[in-house]
Amino acid sequence: MRPFKRRKRGDDLSAFQPIAGNGLLDRRALLGRGIALAGAMGAGGAASLTGAAAEPLKEEPWSLEPGDVLAPYQQPSKFERKVVRILSNPKGEPRTQHARTPHQMLNGTITPNGLHFTISHQGNPEIDPDKHRLVIHGMVKQPLMFTLDTLARYPMVTRTTFVECGGNSGLLFSPEPVQTDVQNLHGLVSCAEWTGVKLSVLLEEAGIDKTAKWMIAEGADAPALSRSIPVKKALDDAMIALYQNGERLMPGNGYPMRLLLPGYEGNTQVKYLRRLKIVNQPGMSYYETRTYSPILPNGKAYRFFFLQEIKSFITQPSPGLTLKEPGLYEISGIAYSGTGKITKVMVSADGGKSWGNAALQAPVLNKAFTRFRMAWRWNGGPAILQSRAWDDAGNVQPTRAEIVATRGQTKTIPRVGGFPSQHYNGITSWGVAGNGEVKHVYA
Amino acid sequence: MRPFKRRKRGDDLSAFQPIAGNGLLDRRALLGRGIALAGAMGAGGAASLTGAAAEPLKEEPWSLEPGDVLAPYQQPSKFERKVVRILSNPKGEPRTQHARTPHQMLNGTITPNGLHFTISHQGNPEIDPDKHRLVIHGMVKQPLMFTLDTLARYPMVTRTTFVECGGNSGLLFSPEPVQTDVQNLHGLVSCAEWTGVKLSVLLEEAGIDKTAKWMIAEGADAPALSRSIPVKKALDDAMIALYQNGERLMPGNGYPMRLLLPGYEGNTQVKYLRRLKIVNQPGMSYYETRTYSPILPNGKAYRFFFLQEIKSFITQPSPGLTLKEPGLYEISGIAYSGTGKITKVMVSADGGKSWGNAALQAPVLNKAFTRFRMAWRWNGGPAILQSRAWDDAGNVQPTRAEIVATRGQTKTIPRVGGFPSQHYNGITSWGVAGNGEVKHVYA
Repeated sequence: MRPFKRRKRGDDLSAFQPIAGNGLLDRRALLGRGIALAGAMGAGGAASLTGAAAEPLKEEPWSLEPGDVLAPYQQPSKFERKVVRILSNPKGEPRTQHARTPHQMLNGTITPNGLHFTISHQGNPEIDPDKHRLVIHGMVKQPLMFTLDTLARYPMVTRTTFVECGGNSGLLFSPEPVQTDVQNLHGLVSCAEWTGVKLSVLLEEAGIDKTAKWMIAEGADAPALSRSIPVKKALDDAMIALYQNGERLMPGNGYPMRLLLPGYEGNTQVKYLRRLKIVNQPGMSYYETRTYSPILPNGKAYRFFFLQEIKSFITQPSPGLTLKEPGLYEISGIAYSGTGKITKVMVSADGGKSWGNAALQAPVLNKAFTRFRMAWRWNGGPAILQSRAWDDAGNVQPTRAEIVATRGQTKTIPRVGGFPSQHYNGITSWGVAGNGEVKHVYA
Repeated sequence: MRPFKRRKRGDDLSAFQPIAGNGLLDRRALLGRGIALAGAMGAGGAASLTGAAAEPLKEEPWSLEPGDVLAPYQQPSKFERKVVRILSNPKGEPRTQHARTPHQMLNGTITPNGLHFTISHQGNPEIDPDKHRLVIHGMVKQPLMFTLDTLARYPMVTRTTFVECGGNSGLLFSPEPVQTDVQNLHGLVSCAEWTGVKLSVLLEEAGIDKTAKWMIAEGADAPALSRSIPVKKALDDAMIALYQNGERLMPGNGYPMRLLLPGYEGNTQVKYLRRLKIVNQPGMSYYETRTYSPILPNGKAYRFFFLQEIKSFITQPSPGLTLKEPGLYEISGIAYSGTGKITKVMVSADGGKSWGNAALQAPVLNKAFTRFRMAWRWNGGPAILQSRAWDDAGNVQPTRAEIVATRGQTKTIPRVGGFPSQHYNGITSWGVAGNGEVKHVYA
């Protein structure tokens, strides 16, 4: 391929409207002007693709030979082999396995099924869907048992929502910034379109006792993970999810059915769901008394803290994605809230001294990923990139200092892959150095 | 697994509100009542799952043994091996290959990347993204060349839109209903969330000549497929798509970049896009003069008919999905329009004699799949299921008779997999027999 001449950058940039310090630009003003990032070509260069020029371009092999046979279930290009989930336990030793979403290599708002995060405490079970049953019992007029075929005949609903592990982003409780990428820091959250049956419809059919306050959800995999869920949530927006981005759930995400509790911590959204028992007090199960009841600095534990609170982080640029030269870039990231819709994301390039309003990609959906974007002219000097989100319930993403003040931090630096504590939703900061490298920093 | 007693069906059904003939019900009235589809259990049956009953349930192996190791890129369950694309040319012989989406086994509105339809005229090329270039030239002030890295720095947009082959549903031009399933009849349409750069931004940078009317788009695969696109469309909502449902495009859908023209026939949305030449007349290329200029009954050919007009079809029930017994079912399907948003879908269970309003799943997006749903009580007698869609531009999906009157039909019954003609968007009818079998019929 013939090299092409890069144009001098920044020719038109003096006309761009800055909206905050250190190069943040008004994205609307950017559109409709010459952005001047592409390589300029002479008329000969362009014509050469047609074979008419004096110096014809060499055709690459894929333009000259037949390609590959189509597959019944297609897979990404072999050139995308690095775009995979990081595994914490690739040999499947008898302990928990994590598989983290590579947000730094994705864009948009949907997490494709191949890359949706998974946490599994004893591996993915291979469940025969014809033999799987869901039982609703306990404080109900009529205990019920459902097959997958039966559930398929109920009224279905579809909604896009994120699922996040309560321990996601826990490395930010470290006293020093852990040097790793956004996948290791924030890769235990993903967003998909889920389709299934509203749980309220099934509970109404069973005839739930009006004095019942809790529901115990249990999975069919070997750990029989169980969690206690408020009946109020079960009757609100809970779903028995059967489809994920159009197809049946992935084995790592609960095949053939899972409890979906939009906005709640992932562990409560029991995968391989086989049993819902309506009761009047919580079960005090293993995970809810051990992992999800962290001790706070004031000596109290917080229990039954379900909500994944408002959060945002920048995915591009981020550690591992080096800026090659000064000039225009798009700062892009994800914001979400377990409470409602994102209403505003602000971005800073100077470590929080000044902030500019990011563009939010429509449609902005309730309890779902919202992609935000901001135009940035990097001048080649140091910069600290941050994002901060607001939701329609009036919640604002806290600073890291605010989180640490109420929830503490670890004494030593945790290892990458560790879970020092739960529910970090503070600001993440990326430091950009003069050589274009991006590092995790505190600011 | 212990068998469970099915309750007598229809106990509460007399209270349900019919909204059209042959069992169509008001879905809102259905919710909040006992639907009575699930199997009833005695208290012992429910308790037995806990091991407390006299007759304990047998635990299945997946509840007793560790599961599988997580994969870096996860795949569907082995029990879903039938949920794949049908291939027209599985050995990759030197002719076109089609891979059709199995809509009868999907739900929601997103087509997962593994199952997005593909048509390939010479197989999927294996393009090295670092070597791939996009050139914009012709009637522009400054010809430009883009690498993938350069494009990543431009302002991105995300939108969900369907892509449909102009030949999709062509079997319905047959004089007799071809006996096959929804995948073979309508499987050349899919819907995904696409992310990329708006083409208007790049054309503005190149400085497009105001007298230019057409743009010739060319792919980098061996056939170098090229199509002529009106500049008006290029400056409207055209996108250089780089991501599909969050990850890079699938090889069968244009990796590393494709032209996305929401609402236009799929063949124009050139995959492996390497060249856009701005010109003042169409190129009259192979596909646009041969395949996409069908002769009409009045002897004229229609040329440059780009729009995928309003269409809908029922995915469940549909051929291959047999109803096992009379009772409540959900009728579910997909509606879309290349012109705008779906505003209404009506469903009939009596071959079009009476119609009921289907529920539309929110959010209803422009030029995207809209899932519609209708509650139906099948009485065990014959039924003919149909759907018909309306959009916000005032378009209504035609009947088959209306289409055939203006565009003709074939003289003989085409083979499954064939493409008798283009742009069928009439009504599809499914006949349900007393034994629960579903067949393709004309009504």
